[in-house]
Amino acid sequence: MPYKPNVLLVGAGGVGAMAAFALEYSGESLVTSVLRSDYAHVLENGFSINSCDYGQGISYRPTNVVNSIDAGKDYGPFDFVVLATKCIPEVSSMIDIIRPAVSKDTAIVLIQNGIGIEDEALSKCPNNVILSGVSMIASSNVKGHIEHSGRDLLSVGYFKNVNLSNEYQEKVCRRFVSMYKNDKNQCVFDENVKFSRWRKLVYNACLNPVCAITSVDVGRLELFGGTDSIIRKAMKEVIAIAKSDGIELSEALMDFMIRSNDPVYYKPSMLVDIEKGNLLEIEVICGNPVRIAQKNGVNAPYLTLIYDLLKIVQGRIMEKKGMLTIPKERPVPS
Amino acid sequence: MPYKPNVLLVGAGGVGAMAAFALEYSGESLVTSVLRSDYAHVLENGFSINSCDYGQGISYRPTNVVNSIDAGKDYGPFDFVVLATKCIPEVSSMIDIIRPAVSKDTAIVLIQNGIGIEDEALSKCPNNVILSGVSMIASSNVKGHIEHSGRDLLSVGYFKNVNLSNEYQEKVCRRFVSMYKNDKNQCVFDENVKFSRWRKLVYNACLNPVCAITSVDVGRLELFGGTDSIIRKAMKEVIAIAKSDGIELSEALMDFMIRSNDPVYYKPSMLVDIEKGNLLEIEVICGNPVRIAQKNGVNAPYLTLIYDLLKIVQGRIMEKKGMLTIPKERPVPS
Repeated sequence: MPYKPNVLLVGAGGVGAMAAFALEYSGESLVTSVLRSDYAHVLENGFSINSCDYGQGISYRPTNVVNSIDAGKDYGPFDFVVLATKCIPEVSSMIDIIRPAVSKDTAIVLIQNGIGIEDEALSKCPNNVILSGVSMIASSNVKGHIEHSGRDLLSVGYFKNVNLSNEYQEKVCRRFVSMYKNDKNQCVFDENVKFSRWRKLVYNACLNPVCAITSVDVGRLELFGGTDSIIRKAMKEVIAIAKSDGIELSEALMDFMIRSNDPVYYKPSMLVDIEKGNLLEIEVICGNPVRIAQKNGVNAPYLTLIYDLLKIVQGRIMEKKGMLTIPKERPVPS
Repeated sequence: MPYKPNVLLVGAGGVGAMAAFALEYSGESLVTSVLRSDYAHVLENGFSINSCDYGQGISYRPTNVVNSIDAGKDYGPFDFVVLATKCIPEVSSMIDIIRPAVSKDTAIVLIQNGIGIEDEALSKCPNNVILSGVSMIASSNVKGHIEHSGRDLLSVGYFKNVNLSNEYQEKVCRRFVSMYKNDKNQCVFDENVKFSRWRKLVYNACLNPVCAITSVDVGRLELFGGTDSIIRKAMKEVIAIAKSDGIELSEALMDFMIRSNDPVYYKPSMLVDIEKGNLLEIEVICGNPVRIAQKNGVNAPYLTLIYDLLKIVQGRIMEKKGMLTIPKERPVPS
């Protein structure tokens, strides 16, 4: 029996569950899936999946189902540790969490939004390949049931690690692409990770937070005038910041992104998170672009205010979740 | 019996109910109160009032209680028609609504927030005195029960009407002040209406909408960092726009306003409106300052974005209230 690459997959939301499925679909890899809230259900029943790529009524249980990295370690060593969780570094370091499962030859795959997400991995795992996964899937997980409604297109590249040769990093990356790709989905080698990530931010740093702040979907946002009054201005700022960071994006991207959910009254992920009371990925989606703008002297008042508003909303969510406590008496200057 | 000035008072929220009470407290005027939702209750039982100025457990019924301007007209003619409603000109013209009760000698008193609120009254009632009431009261009405927790301080001046002499306008204004003022409350003649209104906007165009957008009170806003990251920048824009409009406000006002609710985790009115699903006064509080900024070439990105975000929120509220309907299919460019 030929060797099957061994994958630890952390996070089983809509993206993570379909990534596990894709990796095992072609039978070329073994997946150990680390679950939290759905652990007991998936261990017993597997996921139920309705997929626009693979068909309806699919039942799927990853080869190994565990509820912690520690438990997952027993199935190692791993060729790949895939992080398909939200990236909220100000709350928890996912790199610290997965490190016990990372060995010398493990490549870490970050299927996560935003920019600057690789810094921690590169500094804490300086001799490992760090891959970037930019996912264009539309998929949700409600208690182990996956509704996969928008085709799975994953772009995978490597975050350049100066301690390793480019050839080696590309080889590892292409290996992951070939494991992930099958006859139903799309997975491509990403020549320019930075470009792909800035490109996606044209959507994610604009439509995503503004829909979250105003509690409307992208269709209503447009009908109420926000696409023209807010989104285009914010998108222009993203494009200007990207340019200051060495990435040229076409202004035509703005309309492409604005139209990308047609004809659906689509709720971007951050709005869904707000509605569920989940924490928001504000630092990697909004904070890092704003910090790059500041560093490079790019004027970005809209993104800055959007980011600062989201920080307040995040505080409200954290208080609601019991992650921070407000003094009984309002502190005032003495 | 000496003649008592006859007052039609439209709107009986926390502000309007206490205005009616103040006007009748000293026995110097007769109030006909126009109510909507609380009409039947107040007609039968009057208001129940707990007041920091007048005492607890007060029962008060205005001299006349009616449920429409038409019904109120029977008690006219009126020396004063007082508007103590929210000012949402994009939804309804309160001036058109009260006009049947306005006669040649009626003065119109606008106890309302924002700037530019007088334009419609001056153009539609060009021969009437139009007074400005800037209220600093904290008072709420829940189904006819008034909790009046912050002292009633009303500043009344006149919006200059070029068709009338200043002497006459001031005389009418001072008459209203003397009717309103009693030994429990404060009511002062406002020499500079424009100044008072811009001054109040330093609070109202900043803390009010930002708390509404982020759904936190002013205390949490400060604890989560928003006072420094957002409010001071927005307040500086208000001060700059006021300056372009001929009004000099001190920067020290910023801290005065920021500290004005100490030590309460206070919810500004717009946040309360959001929580109740009420429409927001966005045009007179946010829209008009932004338009003045545009006209005068003042850079005001924060106020502009705050205004544009509120317009989306207003759309959401209007849809929820059934005031606008969204197409079943999302319209997309053909």
